Amino acid sequence: IKLWGGRFVGDTDPVMERFNASIAYDQRMWDADIRGSKAYVKALEKAKLVTTEEMTAISQGLDQISDEWSRGVFVIKPGDEDIHTANERRLKELIGAPAGKLHTGRSRNDQVVTDMRLWLRNAISTLTENALQLISTLVERAAAEIDVLFPGYTHMQRAQPIRWSHWILSGAIAGTPFDIDRELLRKELDFNGISLNSMDATGQRDFVVEFLFWASLCLTHLSKMAEDLMLYSTKEFSFIALSDAYSTGSSLMPQKKNADSLELIRSKAGRVFGRCAGFMMTLKGLPSTYNKDLQEDKEAMFDCYDTVLAVLQVTTGVMSTLKINQSVMEAALSPDMLATDLAYYLVRKGMPFREAHGISGKAVFTAESRNVALNQLTVEDLSAISPLFGGDVSSVWDYRSSVEQYSAPGGTAKSSVAAQVEHLRTWLKAQAQ
Amino acid sequence: IKLWGGRFVGDTDPVMERFNASIAYDQRMWDADIRGSKAYVKALEKAKLVTTEEMTAISQGLDQISDEWSRGVFVIKPGDEDIHTANERRLKELIGAPAGKLHTGRSRNDQVVTDMRLWLRNAISTLTENALQLISTLVERAAAEIDVLFPGYTHMQRAQPIRWSHWILSGAIAGTPFDIDRELLRKELDFNGISLNSMDATGQRDFVVEFLFWASLCLTHLSKMAEDLMLYSTKEFSFIALSDAYSTGSSLMPQKKNADSLELIRSKAGRVFGRCAGFMMTLKGLPSTYNKDLQEDKEAMFDCYDTVLAVLQVTTGVMSTLKINQSVMEAALSPDMLATDLAYYLVRKGMPFREAHGISGKAVFTAESRNVALNQLTVEDLSAISPLFGGDVSSVWDYRSSVEQYSAPGGTAKSSVAAQVEHLRTWLKAQAQ
Amino acid sequence: IKLWGGRFVGDTDPVMERFNASIAYDQRMWDADIRGSKAYVKALEKAKLVTTEEMTAISQGLDQISDEWSRGVFVIKPGDEDIHTANERRLKELIGAPAGKLHTGRSRNDQVVTDMRLWLRNAISTLTENALQLISTLVERAAAEIDVLFPGYTHMQRAQPIRWSHWILSGAIAGTPFDIDRELLRKELDFNGISLNSMDATGQRDFVVEFLFWASLCLTHLSKMAEDLMLYSTKEFSFIALSDAYSTGSSLMPQKKNADSLELIRSKAGRVFGRCAGFMMTLKGLPSTYNKDLQEDKEAMFDCYDTVLAVLQVTTGVMSTLKINQSVMEAALSPDMLATDLAYYLVRKGMPFREAHGISGKAVFTAESRNVALNQLTVEDLSAISPLFGGDVSSVWDYRSSVEQYSAPGGTAKSSVAAQVEHLRTWLKAQAQ
Amino acid sequence: IKLWGGRFVGDTDPVMERFNASIAYDQRMWDADIRGSKAYVKALEKAKLVTTEEMTAISQGLDQISDEWSRGVFVIKPGDEDIHTANERRLKELIGAPAGKLHTGRSRNDQVVTDMRLWLRNAISTLTENALQLISTLVERAAAEIDVLFPGYTHMQRAQPIRWSHWILSGAIAGTPFDIDRELLRKELDFNGISLNSMDATGQRDFVVEFLFWASLCLTHLSKMAEDLMLYSTKEFSFIALSDAYSTGSSLMPQKKNADSLELIRSKAGRVFGRCAGFMMTLKGLPSTYNKDLQEDKEAMFDCYDTVLAVLQVTTGVMSTLKINQSVMEAALSPDMLATDLAYYLVRKGMPFREAHGISGKAVFTAESRNVALNQLTVEDLSAISPLFGGDVSSVWDYRSSVEQYSAPGGTAKSSVAAQVEHLRTWLKAQAQ
Repeated sequence: IKLWGGRFVGDTDPVMERFNASIAYDQRMWDADIRGSKAYVKALEKAKLVTTEEMTAISQGLDQISDEWSRGVFVIKPGDEDIHTANERRLKELIGAPAGKLHTGRSRNDQVVTDMRLWLRNAISTLTENALQLISTLVERAAAEIDVLFPGYTHMQRAQPIRWSHWILSGAIAGTPFDIDRELLRKELDFNGISLNSMDATGQRDFVVEFLFWASLCLTHLSKMAEDLMLYSTKEFSFIALSDAYSTGSSLMPQKKNADSLELIRSKAGRVFGRCAGFMMTLKGLPSTYNKDLQEDKEAMFDCYDTVLAVLQVTTGVMSTLKINQSVMEAALSPDMLATDLAYYLVRKGMPFREAHGISGKAVFTAESRNVALNQLTVEDLSAISPLFGGDVSSVWDYRSSVEQYSAPGGTAKSSVAAQVEHLRTWLKAQAQ
Repeated sequence: IKLWGGRFVGDTDPVMERFNASIAYDQRMWDADIRGSKAYVKALEKAKLVTTEEMTAISQGLDQISDEWSRGVFVIKPGDEDIHTANERRLKELIGAPAGKLHTGRSRNDQVVTDMRLWLRNAISTLTENALQLISTLVERAAAEIDVLFPGYTHMQRAQPIRWSHWILSGAIAGTPFDIDRELLRKELDFNGISLNSMDATGQRDFVVEFLFWASLCLTHLSKMAEDLMLYSTKEFSFIALSDAYSTGSSLMPQKKNADSLELIRSKAGRVFGRCAGFMMTLKGLPSTYNKDLQEDKEAMFDCYDTVLAVLQVTTGVMSTLKINQSVMEAALSPDMLATDLAYYLVRKGMPFREAHGISGKAVFTAESRNVALNQLTVEDLSAISPLFGGDVSSVWDYRSSVEQYSAPGGTAKSSVAAQVEHLRTWLKAQAQ
Repeated sequence: IKLWGGRFVGDTDPVMERFNASIAYDQRMWDADIRGSKAYVKALEKAKLVTTEEMTAISQGLDQISDEWSRGVFVIKPGDEDIHTANERRLKELIGAPAGKLHTGRSRNDQVVTDMRLWLRNAISTLTENALQLISTLVERAAAEIDVLFPGYTHMQRAQPIRWSHWILSGAIAGTPFDIDRELLRKELDFNGISLNSMDATGQRDFVVEFLFWASLCLTHLSKMAEDLMLYSTKEFSFIALSDAYSTGSSLMPQKKNADSLELIRSKAGRVFGRCAGFMMTLKGLPSTYNKDLQEDKEAMFDCYDTVLAVLQVTTGVMSTLKINQSVMEAALSPDMLATDLAYYLVRKGMPFREAHGISGKAVFTAESRNVALNQLTVEDLSAISPLFGGDVSSVWDYRSSVEQYSAPGGTAKSSVAAQVEHLRTWLKAQAQ
Repeated sequence: IKLWGGRFVGDTDPVMERFNASIAYDQRMWDADIRGSKAYVKALEKAKLVTTEEMTAISQGLDQISDEWSRGVFVIKPGDEDIHTANERRLKELIGAPAGKLHTGRSRNDQVVTDMRLWLRNAISTLTENALQLISTLVERAAAEIDVLFPGYTHMQRAQPIRWSHWILSGAIAGTPFDIDRELLRKELDFNGISLNSMDATGQRDFVVEFLFWASLCLTHLSKMAEDLMLYSTKEFSFIALSDAYSTGSSLMPQKKNADSLELIRSKAGRVFGRCAGFMMTLKGLPSTYNKDLQEDKEAMFDCYDTVLAVLQVTTGVMSTLKINQSVMEAALSPDMLATDLAYYLVRKGMPFREAHGISGKAVFTAESRNVALNQLTVEDLSAISPLFGGDVSSVWDYRSSVEQYSAPGGTAKSSVAAQVEHLRTWLKAQAQ
């Protein structure tokens, strides 16, 4: 059946029919569509637009359709251009005439938007569970490996010694924006509130765009984590080794073990953002209320959901199974990474920081010129650069005590990282309730 | 001065120096930079890293620099690669050695991020004021013109009669997401909280990306409003006339009065989203912590601020000065827009909606075939299509009573639109506090 | 079989396996894969890496696989992670050991890129045929309706009278960039040339990105044509009526006939550009040579192909079946659209254009103030504005002679539009050879 | 002066005036505007619309304006909303009335598009020169360092030994697409041809979009090269050292030497693509002919030009000054990178490649299990895996002869890389003519 068939006399071009149809992808919302219709028929009965008997017949018919979908036996027929038409067509087959009353006073646009919101509410709930699992993995791994030090990098250059667990938690914390999203959407989706303006309600898709954007931002964060891990898993770094379960080999080079999982994670940020960019472009300059252009919303939403879900699961797997090479990580620490500490040593003796930074830079330059490590400069060498250097400078050359200086909240000292672990554990527990 | 000059012996390529410098655009943050430094020096004093006298000298020096900037006499010198370097260089000229202590233990990345957050907090506050002014304009215009009816369009085709004020408010409501943004950012920016992880704090720019995204979404909504208004101001529609203050003429065609303001509003959605897309792409796959790539954040943030501000102001101007042609708008209503009401007439007589929709479609087709208006079909004509039609069908052909049916919240009935006006007035009052 | 299975001892996470697999979409390249392999085995025989008998066996095996695919009986088995693995697995089942020699010295990356180029060459050829059909439709329609005038619009405001056929051809000409694309790609794809650098050959995807970009630009042009046609099909313009074959009705409003086809065409520019944007973002910052991130190339390429093909076919259908309302179009011409001609009248009498433009503007203003049409001003009225106006000014008020002035190449005079038609017919004939 | 001032009675909102004005950025086209006008006045004289004396006066006036601009003394006045208005206003001041005849029969849109094409033609020529300089740097560097071997990476994992010069040339070749662009645009811009349709000529901006896209693709390639170089310049790789001229230090950490130049190069791909994405979005769904939305074209074009120019110059500088650490690069080669060669050894003894790949994989696994290098397995060890292994297997363990195998065009053998160098030198010479 074509719902709008009444006044049409020409035939539709079959290419146009395929171009117009959405059943191939919107059938994923079968359950949301049936739940929405079951709620709507109750409202119709209350408004005396259907009788109690009709309501019961419709409701039971919908239950049977639901059963057919869940058993995989629902048959899509030619003319079922979308999930809504398909369910209504089937309802008519099952219960006859009363089926025609189900959508009294309700446009298909209302129905589509309601179904999408119902579907997305469930979808976000699943994504949130998976995000929590990832965060939980990160937190427990950080707790277990809290004693491992390795180089912190800025600009991809070794900067200062930090804890490996500190790095892990920077990922966990970046993961949380995704949950802010959920808060924002939860408010929108829990149906306690109502749309303030009917034109606005059917003609905008903010809840979809916002989901696409948060999905993009979330995957951009994970692309960053993946990039770090790829660096760390190069032969040259050798800080970590991925589990075989998340690696693949090469069809040509027998010795290769590729971090395909990480590359796929990294690549998906582009894919999901492309969906967001594409839908934003589709929206630009549209007149208000419903335009068919909005049909682009569903494939984008589904694709982003599938992609984010897979990325969260694979990242959880990668992070729970990778092995770290503690000795390599700690061997990568080098005395020049303590040059800032050397400057601080002078600051503590009263020198302004900018001057101390310059002095420490000179020490680095001297060591480099002589081709020795920074901590191999003698007290005499250092005194020649600044008279403030004394024998106690030797205390600077200790990575662990360097790290322990950063005990402010958010820092890399053991106590500080432990506090981050505790904070996130508490937060995770709160989410679980 | 080059802050990192200590160990360098080669010269910098001048192209590289320009490529690296950001002073041309980041000087906009001079005030935020000084406020941030004044706060930081207090923390240094508390930590006994500067004396009370040094703190006073630094603080007064900063006040003088602030004064120079606000009087427009601050001189940028060669080597001032960014606003932070420029202010520190000037501080040293003013107070000498203690200036070197100001940034003890603080990386430039910390400083940049703090300054950007301070600047953006102010910027968002200005944008919010302007958004409220626009919304207020829309609300008062809707209140004043609540009695005007005109065609509602879907798919750019006449659909059902609606109130002009209902359309206006759909814009006002779509405007509100921008304020949600503010809520979200306010939480982030009010500095009651602290960053949980130091790597995360300096290496991500979520607050910038989120601002860029919300700016894009806001302008996408306004591009939709602009598109509607351009349609309504074509000769063919003639529903509205723009004030000369927001129109321009043609250099070639003397009779032209172009809605340039609306075209510019529409175009800016692309510009701002391009900034968001570009910065997201820059972020993709970056390793964690600070990378120079992040320097793209500021021009994008400034450009989006300037653009959104101008768009809000021009839209407010357009909406407060345009004139509506009430008679043309109401003359555009046509009986076929009541075909849904004709179907509802049959539903009220007990016919299922789908069947009633088909019958009404046949009536439309009959009228079209005979080349008469739908309300010119006689009761006999209609009875031939369905025996349920009776003499009382004449009551259907009244636009105003058609509109009054939609008195549910969010609907187009006078009472419903008045409720939307009241709701928004209350909300605006709450924002003003 | 897993091609890289040799050294692996752990199991792969099943989520990871799905995440990694591409068979669901890359099976579309089955034919390209087989053609590529048949060519490669000949090269192997020439290099004496397989015997003539082995070559024959492999080649016949591949033919049989090709036959299975085309009859729809090829069975994908668990472990067939992509089309290349699937075909090779099947070949081994059919001919045994020699199958293992087929890809000697050839990495899967080579194979994938070659297959994609072969597939895309065919795809572009199909798109080109469809683009030519669309252009041909436009040209013949322009030829048939060359005498119809209607308002030219700039800024969505009536500007000057033009020919309807002139508008149609502006679409046809904008369509041609797509064919430039083909030229560009043809050079790349005809395999007369070879890749200059093996790292570049497998690690870049310029041919995909360029295809995605040209697809985006092509659909952006068609979104413009669709926007025009939607305007023209509003009740207010009523210049054209879409065929029922490309319209749909409303599930709620029986009288609606929506131009869904045009809205879908308009929306697809966003979708396709999103694919381009997403893949560009995926490419940004990738290290050289092959990275798994590149796997995003295929779904983007396929989706853009399918979308562009459908858009071309639907646009061809729309343009060949729409009806124009010549009388409405010509009735929309109004005397003020001749204000430029009025200025030219003065220019021909020796007045500088800028001054003449001002005088004509005053005439428009006078007519507007008196609420009469511009051509209803008397010679006395006009003389009062400029003494150069005389009785011969009446010759200005003729739309058809106004249009005939623009007889320069590319203009809207009949001879000029006819020349465009001829030019495009000749070009189309050249393409057909 | 406001060109379209005739019929306007209201004042323009000053915010709207700023919003509408483009003089701040389009003054860059002053020269193109004057050259275009000088050509146009000749056409006017030929058409007898200006006298020879007027033509001379206009032409000399324009020369004087050109002189004012080049000496930096041209004064922009209030009301000069764009470069075209400014030049015309100045011309009137200089020569009086005849200035008003300059743009007879020419709309500002024509003028803008012509100016942009003239400007872009020059701009592309400058970019091409800089691109050629970069390619030339790469070619000569490759020629000079043709003997250096280092690991080729795929998936960021060591794959097979390759020449460093082979890597360099993969960048040079990827650089060439930029020049294809020039070919494409040259055809468009050399004005031998004329626009086929006047509506198409003023209403589309394909030449801008194409430029933005090619700029994006070019910078995406350079982002890839930058990413490789950043990897190679990490402490862990230490393959290359950037010149101080392209490095910066840290304000906090005295020992840091950051590859800021490379990070900026990498980041610009996002910026430029954002411009392209933004302008594409602005174009989407615009009605045909000129709309003010098109005004977004110029800032995007200028910004992309400036950005690409700086990136090309900095990349040329980086590549001509970086130092390679040949010993570190060659020490990074490891026997497992010859596992493919080990498989080929078996293929040459008659084993199918897939089987040989598996056998070689087993050898790798055996070596890994025993914690020895692959080439430390004895002939006995290997024979136990496959009886085909013999004493001659020792010939496999030579990096240089491994590399020499790849002597096919585009390969990494010395002869092959030398051929690439020669090819590019020839091509560069051809460009220089």
